[in-house]
Amino acid sequence: MKGLYFDGEKAVYREDLPIPVCGEGQSLIKILLADICSTDREILKGYRPDFRGIMGHEFVGRVVESPDPSLVGKTVVGELNEGCGKCIYCRTRREKHCLSRKVIGMSKDGCFAEYMTLATHLIHVVPEGLPPEQAVFTEPLAAALEITKQVHIDPALNAAVIGDGRLAYMIAQVLALTGIDLTVIGKHPEKLQMFEPFAKTALLPDYQDRSLSAEECFEYVAEASGHESGIHLALHIVRKMGTIILKSTYAGSANIDLSQIPVNEITVVGSRCGPFEPALKLLKEGKVSFPDVELYNLKDYEKAFSSHAFKSGFSFLKEYIH
Amino acid sequence: MKGLYFDGEKAVYREDLPIPVCGEGQSLIKILLADICSTDREILKGYRPDFRGIMGHEFVGRVVESPDPSLVGKTVVGELNEGCGKCIYCRTRREKHCLSRKVIGMSKDGCFAEYMTLATHLIHVVPEGLPPEQAVFTEPLAAALEITKQVHIDPALNAAVIGDGRLAYMIAQVLALTGIDLTVIGKHPEKLQMFEPFAKTALLPDYQDRSLSAEECFEYVAEASGHESGIHLALHIVRKMGTIILKSTYAGSANIDLSQIPVNEITVVGSRCGPFEPALKLLKEGKVSFPDVELYNLKDYEKAFSSHAFKSGFSFLKEYIH
Repeated sequence: MKGLYFDGEKAVYREDLPIPVCGEGQSLIKILLADICSTDREILKGYRPDFRGIMGHEFVGRVVESPDPSLVGKTVVGELNEGCGKCIYCRTRREKHCLSRKVIGMSKDGCFAEYMTLATHLIHVVPEGLPPEQAVFTEPLAAALEITKQVHIDPALNAAVIGDGRLAYMIAQVLALTGIDLTVIGKHPEKLQMFEPFAKTALLPDYQDRSLSAEECFEYVAEASGHESGIHLALHIVRKMGTIILKSTYAGSANIDLSQIPVNEITVVGSRCGPFEPALKLLKEGKVSFPDVELYNLKDYEKAFSSHAFKSGFSFLKEYIH
Repeated sequence: MKGLYFDGEKAVYREDLPIPVCGEGQSLIKILLADICSTDREILKGYRPDFRGIMGHEFVGRVVESPDPSLVGKTVVGELNEGCGKCIYCRTRREKHCLSRKVIGMSKDGCFAEYMTLATHLIHVVPEGLPPEQAVFTEPLAAALEITKQVHIDPALNAAVIGDGRLAYMIAQVLALTGIDLTVIGKHPEKLQMFEPFAKTALLPDYQDRSLSAEECFEYVAEASGHESGIHLALHIVRKMGTIILKSTYAGSANIDLSQIPVNEITVVGSRCGPFEPALKLLKEGKVSFPDVELYNLKDYEKAFSSHAFKSGFSFLKEYIH
């Protein structure tokens, strides 16, 4: 089959890959669409030096073989972390944190290929009527919903999102659904335009490098800029007794004035992968939506990776190709 | 009157201080007992260089004058942060974070004196039968109760307290009341003995500098060591998706591997002053208790400050003097 293989240094387009065979409890999925996530770009920069295998973890597919016969033929999406099923994290609904988990596209063959196997319990059926080009946003939208799973957002207060990229867009859409007074703080006027239908927008210098009154500050601040400077800004704009949600991951250490956290009674919540079912529900109901994905043939992977579209990816169905 | 006055460099015992006069909304309190907090020691080291005035913020007193006649003659304790009453923090139950607040013993005359004035709404009546030597622990115990105010502690999980000093002892007693499986990690075997009636105890090397299994780690970690190393240990021993409570304040910046917070979905909660009423209730009911305070005459303040007792302080009543 066709697939995009990471050889430890670079992505290689191959047509000689074997169709995977299901292990115990696994289902075989024919991939329809697959999206590029920034993590995939990080892998090409050396984020997972020990990984060898098929890349990709955001997909929509169709089940062709499964121990659960009701799934066969269904259009599905899937979670990426496959735990051991035995440890304290797996036993307490934290499978995504299992220390011996396999992660599709990172430590186990992923979805940038015609077929992929996946633990059946990680599969979620796409509701009828939700097109694959929107369903493919399930995984990143679920990560945004992890915020409302972890933190009670009081809709009578106010919130800021730091960042104007894809992650910020997902988070801002989710927070906007609470009805909260929402401000998105970014660097790029052209990107901030996207947020205007549901949030106030502001450019970084409006908040940086000046002292802010308590009224100007925010009860909730979601950091989604991907830069270490984002955490400094978050500490600057959060109200005392407020909450900072860290969505971006940072490479290496950051020098933080920790004394602010107890003195101002700030709560900092680290937040990562989230729940798929509410993401599918919101997508199906049109409560959130995203610009169309720019889709390529798998062999044009270099174009797909260098695309500046909101989201780019691969289609294994002719009708979707860009 | 007698009082211990901070002149910007050192504490000075004086007998020529005027008895303070109540401003609007204030009550006049005759001090019975006053305790030394580590913050008072910090002031002597330069923590509040601009402060000039009477030191001290932990006290038990008797109301001698008040706009609320029902308070006159009552034995009371009092909160230390007097807000402006108008700003967003004062209007939303966060008076202790008011940017223009006055803090007794830090930016307003405190309780190491025969008399002190205090905003009447900050006064709490000591329940009958609770002796002053225990009531004087209300303020630090309230700070420990801020943890259970901020964080839902699931008693079926486990928790660790880092530190074996006074703050750790208060926190451990409060956490133990939830019934949770509790471990106190300290440096001093002789101090750890105090915790044995209600917690497991462990020495630092049992957890430091070795890799821990998920089972050995903790869902809640309260950092009360007062050292920056405590936060590194907290990040080492907390379970993924667990909660770290930062009670200690640190001088300056700390270098923290921030990526752990989003990747492991850790929540970090800064925690400071807390609710007085539950503290008074627990003390009155004997659910928590503390070793007797070592009490000195105010003029022996140097001895009181250098005492190694669990708590030392001043008595303005002859019968309590050490």
